[in-house]
Amino acid sequence: MLTRVKSAVAGFMGGIMTGGSSGGGGNNGSELPLKFPYMRPQFLGLSPDEIECSADHIARPILILKETRRLPWATGYAEVINAGKSALNEDQACCEVVVARRRPMSYCPPSTPSKTPTAKRRNSLPNGEGLGLRMEHGMLGEDSEGLVFHYWALFDGHAGSGAAVVASRLLQHHIACQLQAVIEILRNLASLPPTIMGEEPDNNPYLQGNTPGPHRGLTRAASLRGATGPSGPPSSTPPPPRFFTEKKIQHESLVIGAIENAFKEMDAQIEKEKQAYNVTGGCTALSVVYLLGKLYVGNAGDSRAIIIRNNEIIPMSTEFTPESERQRLQFLGFMQPHLLGNEFTHLEFPRRVQRKEVGKRMLYRDFTMKGWAYKTVEDEDLKFPLIYGEGKKARVLATIGVTRGLGDHDLKVHDSNIYIKPFLSCCPEVKVYNLMHYEHGADDVLVMGTDGLWDVLSNQEVAEAVTTFLANCDPDDLHRYTMAAQDLVMRARGVLRDRGWRITNERLGSGDDISVFIIPLMYGNRQP
Amino acid sequence: MLTRVKSAVAGFMGGIMTGGSSGGGGNNGSELPLKFPYMRPQFLGLSPDEIECSADHIARPILILKETRRLPWATGYAEVINAGKSALNEDQACCEVVVARRRPMSYCPPSTPSKTPTAKRRNSLPNGEGLGLRMEHGMLGEDSEGLVFHYWALFDGHAGSGAAVVASRLLQHHIACQLQAVIEILRNLASLPPTIMGEEPDNNPYLQGNTPGPHRGLTRAASLRGATGPSGPPSSTPPPPRFFTEKKIQHESLVIGAIENAFKEMDAQIEKEKQAYNVTGGCTALSVVYLLGKLYVGNAGDSRAIIIRNNEIIPMSTEFTPESERQRLQFLGFMQPHLLGNEFTHLEFPRRVQRKEVGKRMLYRDFTMKGWAYKTVEDEDLKFPLIYGEGKKARVLATIGVTRGLGDHDLKVHDSNIYIKPFLSCCPEVKVYNLMHYEHGADDVLVMGTDGLWDVLSNQEVAEAVTTFLANCDPDDLHRYTMAAQDLVMRARGVLRDRGWRITNERLGSGDDISVFIIPLMYGNRQP
Repeated sequence: MLTRVKSAVAGFMGGIMTGGSSGGGGNNGSELPLKFPYMRPQFLGLSPDEIECSADHIARPILILKETRRLPWATGYAEVINAGKSALNEDQACCEVVVARRRPMSYCPPSTPSKTPTAKRRNSLPNGEGLGLRMEHGMLGEDSEGLVFHYWALFDGHAGSGAAVVASRLLQHHIACQLQAVIEILRNLASLPPTIMGEEPDNNPYLQGNTPGPHRGLTRAASLRGATGPSGPPSSTPPPPRFFTEKKIQHESLVIGAIENAFKEMDAQIEKEKQAYNVTGGCTALSVVYLLGKLYVGNAGDSRAIIIRNNEIIPMSTEFTPESERQRLQFLGFMQPHLLGNEFTHLEFPRRVQRKEVGKRMLYRDFTMKGWAYKTVEDEDLKFPLIYGEGKKARVLATIGVTRGLGDHDLKVHDSNIYIKPFLSCCPEVKVYNLMHYEHGADDVLVMGTDGLWDVLSNQEVAEAVTTFLANCDPDDLHRYTMAAQDLVMRARGVLRDRGWRITNERLGSGDDISVFIIPLMYGNRQP
Repeated sequence: MLTRVKSAVAGFMGGIMTGGSSGGGGNNGSELPLKFPYMRPQFLGLSPDEIECSADHIARPILILKETRRLPWATGYAEVINAGKSALNEDQACCEVVVARRRPMSYCPPSTPSKTPTAKRRNSLPNGEGLGLRMEHGMLGEDSEGLVFHYWALFDGHAGSGAAVVASRLLQHHIACQLQAVIEILRNLASLPPTIMGEEPDNNPYLQGNTPGPHRGLTRAASLRGATGPSGPPSSTPPPPRFFTEKKIQHESLVIGAIENAFKEMDAQIEKEKQAYNVTGGCTALSVVYLLGKLYVGNAGDSRAIIIRNNEIIPMSTEFTPESERQRLQFLGFMQPHLLGNEFTHLEFPRRVQRKEVGKRMLYRDFTMKGWAYKTVEDEDLKFPLIYGEGKKARVLATIGVTRGLGDHDLKVHDSNIYIKPFLSCCPEVKVYNLMHYEHGADDVLVMGTDGLWDVLSNQEVAEAVTTFLANCDPDDLHRYTMAAQDLVMRARGVLRDRGWRITNERLGSGDDISVFIIPLMYGNRQP
């Protein structure tokens, strides 16, 4: 990730990182304590000395799980630091088995989940052992205490490691907190989630198409459009029940909604914590939740998850970048032009417009367009384009190359009062994979990686590497997934030669931080 | 289409159609002349008597092309009127061969293309015969006069036939007008479209990564972010050319952009013409342009186009409905709440909220969410949801069931001053199909249909019906595509039995207007 921000803001990012030029009225944090110290993932169990050694930008040692440690499902993990672009590894990772405790009709108040810690977890040995979980088929995820879910996440920080560290420590609790409000509903697969909490679904007059009397206090629009005829005493021919039917919501949608809202709450917490703590920068977030037989992959940023199943590749996320989100961003800039601070135009051009070109006709596209057309250049078009550049060099507001994630509340266009945050979204896209629909073998895995991996290796290359590696391992060796992750990171980092990191075919290796989880899917309905 | 609007606005649409309750300050048109009289597609060549007979809601005769008439590529066409929901058939269709004339460096001024008619067409025999076109492979679409394109379009009107009639007469001219500005570029496939018109692409200093001097008059943001170092005299080490590279735009993107902007101009013209003419309602628009070897399918609404090729179905459009565009609409309502007139909420609920439910927890989803979650019901939530209902009954602002199209500038929520138009988009999604990448047989076709067809027949059913029908026809009979279209319309309309229209398996036939084009693809590089 760091390449994306650093290349654009090199030389003036210091203001944001150290507090030199923040003029937005907020506390930029440099004199505040850290919420959490910089660290490597807790499950690696590194000593302070080892953490220091891991930040060797010359040797770039690949860190893997120690043999004495195990992650749930025998998950493999490996990581490596960047080639010197930032002092610290700004990637962070987390893997835990989490219990969302049952509390009747309770829920987490908005933006304050940190006050109501409800998730129980095992920091030192996060593989769920000792939790006394009942892991029978069809009952997966239930235990007497509430709801159990497995959780893996990668966070790719930029402009500081603060947001990534905080998110790697807390996002799972926000997910637990959101799930907690629907534990009883999720456990009761026999009936659909009720529209209103506390009502019996079958006891709802709306389901029978009955005609309710006029509701006092409804607005005009509400009463007019709530019935097909004028409200008043029921007529002899009741109106059709068209407007009184309910949408049927599936259980799966509640889990998706819980993850979506957890990301929002995590982002709100970071914003709030910045009043009291030094939380630098922002981060992407890619999370995988396993609950009740299904994997839920939530992604906000440009990390990526794919499933490799019997040599087939199933993409489980899409990346959110200035290019992939161009139309959303342009639409926002068009509707709220003050966010562009009179310095940017929401229109896209193939390159900067020069003053001497005013009056000529130049290619452009607006938020409604996928194609291009010519327009006569006006003074207004001399402003810098909201979206500019291609591929990895594409930027929003000339500043950032990723459009979803957590944090970044203080990030501004250099030497201006234009905030980036309104254009960034903390909302993930959540994709679902039902583990019960397929009998998975030992080589069927889900691979999660930060963009350091995917920038240099294609899905196909990753799939071939993993499949080949696992085929040469003992299927009963629980350490095989960590070795495969190490192999992947090695292939993406490459070897140092001629003053550069090189991978196969003399291509350049990734100089970015690289983090990889390899999660075997066969353990979805049994505990290794 | 009409079911979508009529069912929601039944009983109060008269105000919009006749001018009874329009309070928006605009002229609602009832006393103004028609821009074009109501008609059936010109290529059908119907007499006024025949047009009157076609509107028989009891018999619902299926209209097809007369044997003496031919459309380009031997295109088949058939249509039928609705079962009585509106007096007239609100579907319209158009098929023509159009020449966009070359005019050096000229272009259509925004919103005034009607003043500069540049498209030549043959109304009475629209199959391109007599235009003296050179139709050689690789030169397709060129002639001495300019650029030739084939054009098919369907328009599905609602709340009156005015917009559909106007669009069916004029949209092709807007496309011609937009293409006219890029004729020379499209003809010159040897080099990419220039970023600036008039400049030679290879003569552009930006392509060489040269460092331009500081540009006087650039805004601060522009100059800061246009170079990696401070602007001023060139230093001895020029900055990297990163910010001076250009996006390469393909020819295809110019055609897409031309079609996108043509829809916008068509919509703007309808709005403008309403000052002088009576142009009622709105319409969806589905257009197919064949130019230089490729089909460009532009869709704004809920009509649909599919290609049937060797028994494979290739979807060439997606429908735009309150459900498929929910998040865009909610986002707009969230950002510009005044558009909701204090009567609607941008949140979605599974059903109407009742006053007695304030304080309880109800399922909802916001514009960022695909999943659902519970929220505590507040007074604000008693407002009617911006998006409401499911499937064909889903509505925006309780009024309209389609979210893209032309016209509807006067459409308001009943008995309110809330306009629907800001939530509707006139912008099409354009999909491209390269005819040169496949050798098409006589049974490979593109099927275009209004929602009257697709509401009752699936893609698979349509493909099977067409494939079976064509297999039983003489491959050399140019009338076979019209007969296949007639067969499709018959299958969707059904037969009148027990006071209802019934199709196979006792399902209900479509009571909507139904219009179908069947376009054989083998003629893409030869003229039948």
